[in-house]
Amino acid sequence: MAQQQKTPKTAITPTRAENYAEWYQQIVRHSDMAELSGVRGCMIIKPNGYGIWELMQRDLDRRFKDTGHENCYFPLFIPLSYFQKEADHVEGFAKEMAVVTHHRLTAKDGVLVPDGELEEPLIVRPTSETVIGAAMAKWIKSYRDLPCLVNQWANVVRWEMRPRLLLRTAEFLWQEGHTAHETYEDAMAETKRMHEVYRQFAEEVLALPVIMGEKTPNERFPGAVNTFCIEAMMQDGRALQAGTSHYLGQNFSKSIGIQFQDRNGNLEYVHTTSWGVSTRLLGALVMAHGDDNGLRVPPRIAPWQIVILPVLRSDSDKETVLKYCESLKSELAAQCYAGQGVRVKIDMRDISGADKKWDWIKKGAPFVLEIGPRDVEGNKVCVTRRDHLDKGKSFIPRADFVVTVAAELESIQKNMFEQALAFQKSRTVSNIKTYEEFKRYFSADNGYPEGPGFVRAKWSGDPKSLELLEELGVTIRCIPFDQDGKEGKCVLTGAPAMQEVIFARAY
Amino acid sequence: MAQQQKTPKTAITPTRAENYAEWYQQIVRHSDMAELSGVRGCMIIKPNGYGIWELMQRDLDRRFKDTGHENCYFPLFIPLSYFQKEADHVEGFAKEMAVVTHHRLTAKDGVLVPDGELEEPLIVRPTSETVIGAAMAKWIKSYRDLPCLVNQWANVVRWEMRPRLLLRTAEFLWQEGHTAHETYEDAMAETKRMHEVYRQFAEEVLALPVIMGEKTPNERFPGAVNTFCIEAMMQDGRALQAGTSHYLGQNFSKSIGIQFQDRNGNLEYVHTTSWGVSTRLLGALVMAHGDDNGLRVPPRIAPWQIVILPVLRSDSDKETVLKYCESLKSELAAQCYAGQGVRVKIDMRDISGADKKWDWIKKGAPFVLEIGPRDVEGNKVCVTRRDHLDKGKSFIPRADFVVTVAAELESIQKNMFEQALAFQKSRTVSNIKTYEEFKRYFSADNGYPEGPGFVRAKWSGDPKSLELLEELGVTIRCIPFDQDGKEGKCVLTGAPAMQEVIFARAY
Repeated sequence: MAQQQKTPKTAITPTRAENYAEWYQQIVRHSDMAELSGVRGCMIIKPNGYGIWELMQRDLDRRFKDTGHENCYFPLFIPLSYFQKEADHVEGFAKEMAVVTHHRLTAKDGVLVPDGELEEPLIVRPTSETVIGAAMAKWIKSYRDLPCLVNQWANVVRWEMRPRLLLRTAEFLWQEGHTAHETYEDAMAETKRMHEVYRQFAEEVLALPVIMGEKTPNERFPGAVNTFCIEAMMQDGRALQAGTSHYLGQNFSKSIGIQFQDRNGNLEYVHTTSWGVSTRLLGALVMAHGDDNGLRVPPRIAPWQIVILPVLRSDSDKETVLKYCESLKSELAAQCYAGQGVRVKIDMRDISGADKKWDWIKKGAPFVLEIGPRDVEGNKVCVTRRDHLDKGKSFIPRADFVVTVAAELESIQKNMFEQALAFQKSRTVSNIKTYEEFKRYFSADNGYPEGPGFVRAKWSGDPKSLELLEELGVTIRCIPFDQDGKEGKCVLTGAPAMQEVIFARAY
Repeated sequence: MAQQQKTPKTAITPTRAENYAEWYQQIVRHSDMAELSGVRGCMIIKPNGYGIWELMQRDLDRRFKDTGHENCYFPLFIPLSYFQKEADHVEGFAKEMAVVTHHRLTAKDGVLVPDGELEEPLIVRPTSETVIGAAMAKWIKSYRDLPCLVNQWANVVRWEMRPRLLLRTAEFLWQEGHTAHETYEDAMAETKRMHEVYRQFAEEVLALPVIMGEKTPNERFPGAVNTFCIEAMMQDGRALQAGTSHYLGQNFSKSIGIQFQDRNGNLEYVHTTSWGVSTRLLGALVMAHGDDNGLRVPPRIAPWQIVILPVLRSDSDKETVLKYCESLKSELAAQCYAGQGVRVKIDMRDISGADKKWDWIKKGAPFVLEIGPRDVEGNKVCVTRRDHLDKGKSFIPRADFVVTVAAELESIQKNMFEQALAFQKSRTVSNIKTYEEFKRYFSADNGYPEGPGFVRAKWSGDPKSLELLEELGVTIRCIPFDQDGKEGKCVLTGAPAMQEVIFARAY
């Protein structure tokens, strides 16, 4: 029989308050999402993490297809010369890249060494503007070939000196949309459309409230004319960029040579866009929704929305309890939530009941059901709702639980969004007027018991003023779309300023 | 108005009979499946090819999950030292590999050069036994952690000197299942289970009849104890290995050190398996189902099962025809085929009707509907069925077409399988008894008007006899599971032989 395990006060040590950075590492580990591999800076995405990523992919992919995009796959390798053409591009972000120089391993005196040197080194893609642009230059001849709307799900590599699980690793998974259009108007509409797709996805699916805005020039994607972003607040008050959509103008089409015959017979350069989100969103999920007991996964992307734990105290119980669990599973799985059957698992592992329950709490399953002989007898289910862990178990008539399960899952989804939104609001200040106040706010002892978050304030746009942010480790996250339109004073310099921006520390 | 295009006798030049290899290249190009990229040996998988791959993935993934597997993601890079440990493994197949030696590009006198040499070179994965094995060695402690059943969807790289689109490219996409078990019996059951999953997938989904069998020792995956395969016949009579499932015994677990405490408290090595299929199946699809008019896609994996072409001869028609097409699309999409809504597209491109129709015939859409004002008036649909192209168009009452569409799609699926099976049978001979006959059969002028295919005959198992095959470019594809159990004479040497094998040229 399973030994009774002592229940810790919180399942994760340390707590968020004790050491946020270490809490994050522990959640990722205990929730079985990911771990660092033996390959420097590269991670292994484990079943619970990958399962969430698959559900994110499925939802986003539908949204991409509904807006007319088709998936393709482009080469992992990019010839070095493509980067030479894009020297500015490289200057901006792509210095740290994996370089393939040989195409063979040969044993010399029993030791394997690289052999077969390539005439031209190949770069493992850090992003695919150049290689997809080169394909578009071949595909696009006339306005009839436009818009060209492609997306790719792929791995990319950006060498990282200080890797951090899920948030910053040498290799990560993402999608990158790349589109080409006849006109500025079409391309800008696309850029905004995908920006809005990301907002809806973040808020409706990840339960992650985000601020919609545009990046300031210094924070733009290199080569972009406009970069739109969604910015989310983590539980330590820092910002995390959860998705970007770029209007690239004719910068890329001119450097790569993507031309088309327009409706008047003239040869023109296309206007391009690109947009992407990555497995970094798994890290955002941890930091936005995790608590001191582990991960909490919003139901829409929970690999298992309900986990059933059979509680077997004797062999004689076994048959009736398992039969009850199986039929309960079938009934629940037949319920429809968010357009799909409810995802239910029976955990039959040969470990103690307490270990199992804590395992699923740490993994963040929205509902854990413990079913023992007494529940079978009473035709009940013993329910633990992950977002109401403090309320403990409740015993609910089986039929009631089944018919309300979809509504309950949606209530968890909504509750998680509301909690995150309330947090974001509580940690956003908009009454800071001077640099002195600003500096104090971002110091350790800022008078706010919870530490700093987002500052919403006027900024003049003067690039020199950014130097004042550097020593604080603060950046401008975005110029939010909703502006009051009134003139005020720049919080950094006191100069006249029209636009409000969001200041924060960021991941 | 669209100009009437002259319809070619066949849409693809050359035909299969004229030049099979070139016909293949043309189909891949015209069906918009894939093209070679500017990166040597690497391909771009285009929308029609990737759309088919996505449907293959979706179907296979469901089968993997139904058999208890979970998806993970492991690093793209493998340290060189992992291969040193697996020296035998490398000897077998993994010499041609992409080697990363630097992690930076730096501009020197304005020219970008590799910089930041790595202490240990990294190999871009050709397959992931070593890196997944290393993870399993950490994860698995006890029999309670077994079986460990993981799968990965990923890109892999094997440097190819003679690339061939979809069939043999430096980079390709695949899935690789890796599992660890307590006992030989469990691992062998898994190996066979996944072999059978592949057979069902090939036959039911790809409409590709396959021969189930085991590889001879010289054709085994390096390090495997048994390699099971499914072998399909292409329309030139060659074999294509469409999937493999390996029982790896304790070979990998011993070299990597994957140990567990068994039920008696003893430390034991796990038994492992691996199994995979790749985007090569897209090439198999072309070669098994294509005809001289282009690709034919089995309905279960057709990105668009039905394409509707509005035929607009004047602006006054436009509104009524488009309205009819839209409502027809909705009605068809509401029909359920193979557990999903029917996939219907209206092609609104601004090109001639004839070009559009030939485009979809070449892309292999199962049904093309041409809808003009007269069809609207008569409440009909003008239907071209891809597998009955010789029968031309038929005009069917709209309601009849809608209610029978799922059954018709399944009839196409079945018909394609039956055609491929009949072909495979017609090109398999089992009455060849001597090496002289065997040699003549595999020569250009073999007396069979269609050229050689599969020879099913007895083989003694003597490795030296394989030399007789080399000059013919023939290999043993497998030892089929269905054996007559009778002793006969080896077709190569005349020695006594129990087992029948399949001989063929192969891709």
